[in-house]
Amino acid sequence: MGGMRSKLTTLRWRNGILYLLDQRSLPLRKKFVRCRTYADVAKAIKEMTVRGAPAIGVAAAYGLALAAKSSRRYGKAKQLEVVRKAARVLASTRPTAVNLFWGIERVMKKIEEAAGGNESLYKVALNEANKMFNEDIEANRRLGRYGASLLPERCIVMTYCNAGALATVGYGTALGVIRAAVEDKKRVTVLVPETRPKLQGSRLTAYELEVEGIDYRVITDNMAAFVMSKGMVDYVIVGADRVLARTGHAINKIGTLNLAVLAKHFNIPFYVAAPLSSFDFKSDVEEVVIEERSEEEVLSVNGRPISPKNARALNPAFDITPPELITAVITEFGIYSPKELISLSERQ
Amino acid sequence: MGGMRSKLTTLRWRNGILYLLDQRSLPLRKKFVRCRTYADVAKAIKEMTVRGAPAIGVAAAYGLALAAKSSRRYGKAKQLEVVRKAARVLASTRPTAVNLFWGIERVMKKIEEAAGGNESLYKVALNEANKMFNEDIEANRRLGRYGASLLPERCIVMTYCNAGALATVGYGTALGVIRAAVEDKKRVTVLVPETRPKLQGSRLTAYELEVEGIDYRVITDNMAAFVMSKGMVDYVIVGADRVLARTGHAINKIGTLNLAVLAKHFNIPFYVAAPLSSFDFKSDVEEVVIEERSEEEVLSVNGRPISPKNARALNPAFDITPPELITAVITEFGIYSPKELISLSERQ
Repeated sequence: MGGMRSKLTTLRWRNGILYLLDQRSLPLRKKFVRCRTYADVAKAIKEMTVRGAPAIGVAAAYGLALAAKSSRRYGKAKQLEVVRKAARVLASTRPTAVNLFWGIERVMKKIEEAAGGNESLYKVALNEANKMFNEDIEANRRLGRYGASLLPERCIVMTYCNAGALATVGYGTALGVIRAAVEDKKRVTVLVPETRPKLQGSRLTAYELEVEGIDYRVITDNMAAFVMSKGMVDYVIVGADRVLARTGHAINKIGTLNLAVLAKHFNIPFYVAAPLSSFDFKSDVEEVVIEERSEEEVLSVNGRPISPKNARALNPAFDITPPELITAVITEFGIYSPKELISLSERQ
Repeated sequence: MGGMRSKLTTLRWRNGILYLLDQRSLPLRKKFVRCRTYADVAKAIKEMTVRGAPAIGVAAAYGLALAAKSSRRYGKAKQLEVVRKAARVLASTRPTAVNLFWGIERVMKKIEEAAGGNESLYKVALNEANKMFNEDIEANRRLGRYGASLLPERCIVMTYCNAGALATVGYGTALGVIRAAVEDKKRVTVLVPETRPKLQGSRLTAYELEVEGIDYRVITDNMAAFVMSKGMVDYVIVGADRVLARTGHAINKIGTLNLAVLAKHFNIPFYVAAPLSSFDFKSDVEEVVIEERSEEEVLSVNGRPISPKNARALNPAFDITPPELITAVITEFGIYSPKELISLSERQ
């Protein structure tokens, strides 16, 4: 499989083990979590050791390879049973990002096809996971080039959460656009909302930009209207955990809808950057399950309480931005208005 | 001066010392900071030991009483010099909330008037501070009654930051409205955005509601659009650090403008609750100084870093909500549209 494609390694397969950069402890500590079983991968996705729609799609694919590996001494029927169970477990970790289901489906299709033959199911799964790994970087780079073409020589871009190398295999979607613009010698300053409760902005996006030497400022999420009202934001570019191709809705980290409404109010272009692996060509908006995470994430920071002892909280992990608030969607096949997305179904 | 007017004591004058409930350590620890000099009060305002526009106005008034007390053995001329210097120091602590200047001006007017006579300047200052203390609670209660009349028997109100007993002498402005509605047996659920960076929502507002037994849920600031889009918010009621009577702008904690734009988008009434002591009858919006606080507040929580070591941040402490986003302003003299506020100048 491919070597280092950026200064950051989100996930790495080596000697039959999946290594995941532990995103819970960044930027203070850089350490890797070893996944030797599919259960390790499921746990890592659930606990957000690895996060970001494209990254968890590829991690789940490697999870299936691990399931096929651990069961490769059994008969094929039994092995298939193990891998199918792994697929169910992995699919149940997080309900919203579509890449997870896409990654699992892609590998399972290859495995089911190969089940009758002589090929090693482990090899089949691993090949497909490696293929997805490489395709993800490639798709991000192409998406980044399309997006960069939208940006002038000098601008201030607000992004959100982390849609960077850490959310993908290695280049990023929204941050991929910014990376590509900087590679073109454009002078981009990035405004980074911290993205409570898990602080993917101030922890992960700031870390990536720091590593790359790209100019940025962290803001708290509630400062977005202020900076927009002061004319300090030229573009908003966010990633997506799921894009509904039929209607043009974008499901992304909680708070994205805030920014989309504000951008509309202040007449700032609002772009969603997402590869086709994040597209859902089937679902209607009513069918999307918004993950509710533990109240504890809101009521504490870094494990320390910030609220009264018996406080209650809400913790929806995602929100839904309707097409009328989205200027365009940047994909690896070009830039599309939300209404045109369905035409991408032939690219699947 | 008046005794306990609510279960929470924001500030208390006893035996020539001003005690301030330390709002930095709430809700985890409840302790009081003793101010024996005006410099202690200035430090407490600057460091947000005491915060909230009405509370810092009254605290500054007591600060002047402390200055007059410490210099009461000097000649009147020298004493006046000390008190005038104290007024300058106290006025320089925080630039945005107008109550600070209002409180200082009110006491200084009394002191300057008494400077030629035989009365003790300390007594004059203390009397005026005590008067402001009592008036603040009274104004809040009247404001609360007016505001409560707007709310139906059952509703969900989103507030912001802390505009409660802790931000005032003892009843609250936005939370005063909610308190008054609950006293009327209305069933109010409160949505409490945490209000980064200093978390006055999850720390202070949640604490007040917990103490009062009022139903509430904490949300992160970026969840506001989500809950509004789901029809979970009937009213937004916020306080103000300064209301510009001439134009109807409300200056309040950073993030207020976010909520105002969102409320407009989702057709939710947006009310500002502010006593006349928060009104500025002179300034234009261009003249208002928005306090910039230290980047450290954004880059850390509870003193622990949440960003890369060299990260930079913005930290404007307030934003400005224009009149077109404000449904009405709730005062102790009734409910006014932003355009009508100037008519209150005769009430000054």
